[in-house]
Amino acid sequence: MLRIGLDIGGTFIKGGMLDHELHILAEKTVAFPGAKRLDILPGVLEDLAVNLCRQAGKSLEVVQSIGVGVPGSLDPASERVLNAHNLGMTDYPLLALLQDQFPLQQVRLINDANAAALAEHRLGALRGCRTGLMITLGTGVGGGLILGGELFNGGMGQGVELGHMRLVHQGEDCTCGNRGCVEAYCSSAYFLRTGMEPLERVELARSGEPESMVIVDRYLDYLSDALASMIVLLDPEIIALGGGISKAGEFLFGPLRQLVDQKTFFRISPRIEGALLGNKAGFIGAALLGRD
Amino acid sequence: MLRIGLDIGGTFIKGGMLDHELHILAEKTVAFPGAKRLDILPGVLEDLAVNLCRQAGKSLEVVQSIGVGVPGSLDPASERVLNAHNLGMTDYPLLALLQDQFPLQQVRLINDANAAALAEHRLGALRGCRTGLMITLGTGVGGGLILGGELFNGGMGQGVELGHMRLVHQGEDCTCGNRGCVEAYCSSAYFLRTGMEPLERVELARSGEPESMVIVDRYLDYLSDALASMIVLLDPEIIALGGGISKAGEFLFGPLRQLVDQKTFFRISPRIEGALLGNKAGFIGAALLGRD
Repeated sequence: MLRIGLDIGGTFIKGGMLDHELHILAEKTVAFPGAKRLDILPGVLEDLAVNLCRQAGKSLEVVQSIGVGVPGSLDPASERVLNAHNLGMTDYPLLALLQDQFPLQQVRLINDANAAALAEHRLGALRGCRTGLMITLGTGVGGGLILGGELFNGGMGQGVELGHMRLVHQGEDCTCGNRGCVEAYCSSAYFLRTGMEPLERVELARSGEPESMVIVDRYLDYLSDALASMIVLLDPEIIALGGGISKAGEFLFGPLRQLVDQKTFFRISPRIEGALLGNKAGFIGAALLGRD
Repeated sequence: MLRIGLDIGGTFIKGGMLDHELHILAEKTVAFPGAKRLDILPGVLEDLAVNLCRQAGKSLEVVQSIGVGVPGSLDPASERVLNAHNLGMTDYPLLALLQDQFPLQQVRLINDANAAALAEHRLGALRGCRTGLMITLGTGVGGGLILGGELFNGGMGQGVELGHMRLVHQGEDCTCGNRGCVEAYCSSAYFLRTGMEPLERVELARSGEPESMVIVDRYLDYLSDALASMIVLLDPEIIALGGGISKAGEFLFGPLRQLVDQKTFFRISPRIEGALLGNKAGFIGAALLGRD
């Protein structure tokens, strides 16, 4: 079985083809055509799929499924994009449009954070767990939840939005319209408010610059509070951290584990590890939708 | 099948007997002997069980199971009480002691908040849901979680402690040793800090007393923040609220639903309802452990 995964972002679309053993046969990144040119998006995705086939020496006819990851909320049937701000999609019938473009394949949609969690669960840091969290620390804070060994998409199918759990009462404005969300304190936004990109700031802290050390310590205080809330509610076996900020690695993870231990009281704390699949997680997870 | 449920609290022990149709045949409340007289606890529980049998006109020999609810944390095998502060139990082998006292019955232990959630799921406000939360707003904030139509006791079996999710960064001290927990703002402790019992304060607010109205509004702001965090993570169908504070009823629930709607962005909000089983939920849920 051959499957294609396409991870649509506001700047790039990443695509890949997986074989039946889930090996990556081909991958390619192209530009997202822009929120105002959604009319050409199905064609752009078809070109990308054809290019992946060519790289792999296959024809599109033998690809059985195409999974598509979207940075936004889907309806419970995963047919319409309810809201994907970066893509300019509101209540957008993406599944129908793509199914027309790819009549021979089973097409399915997935939220991009869920795609990443699914990929990490099958092939990455969350492999083998029954209860786990994948959290992406980047421009925003996204995440996916594994419960009972399966991807959990919310009790009513409305998704998991752990970046919008509350962290600071009456705190900073969040992009969602509320205040004090995890995303407002644990994403790049926190570092940008201090006038610097996250990894720049981390480098300065690593070199011992006092102000940056304080800023990074405060970040870890917020992030460990956020993780503590998720841990006391779900008692997960593992939390995998991905996204740009996670590239700071053990310099953040070491103190983070200590803080989480202090802030929770279960005898066993979850493992806290870096995600393993990097920016391939999105298209791999989307491709995995076509499994079986 | 006859089953007995015993709900051990720091002041009272509530017991009840259920028949195979889950009707309550007998119930009785006795005093907890005290943290320093744990040696007589098994005997007290046996006397209570015998009393329940007498009320129901049955003999103890025909009771098949005895479930026991405990206000504290259990080991993942539910054999030992790791910590039940109000009962004076630390790493206490309660199951073995009770199994000796009741050799003819299957004895099982459960956390009291989980027992309440289980009871509300089978017979009360959470009936029929696949994803739901039972939250007790009382001296503390406890809760139980229904996932996939089953009671969820944490991914590693360490329990669910939603009262210790974080609500206010660097906020009030909590009984758990951390700061700013949900319990520190959504339990009676919040109202007691304003110099009054919760329901007294609610009555004053209901009568239009300005200061009390502000205090109750602030309580609802905290509680809706706490619920919003749980909702964006789990997207539950229903949240049932129990405990003493919930007796304020629609005077709290009405504005609470509005605030929760404002603070979450899913198209469908969970139903927010009062729990139905009151202080019987503990012994009913404990009794339900013996089902099958």
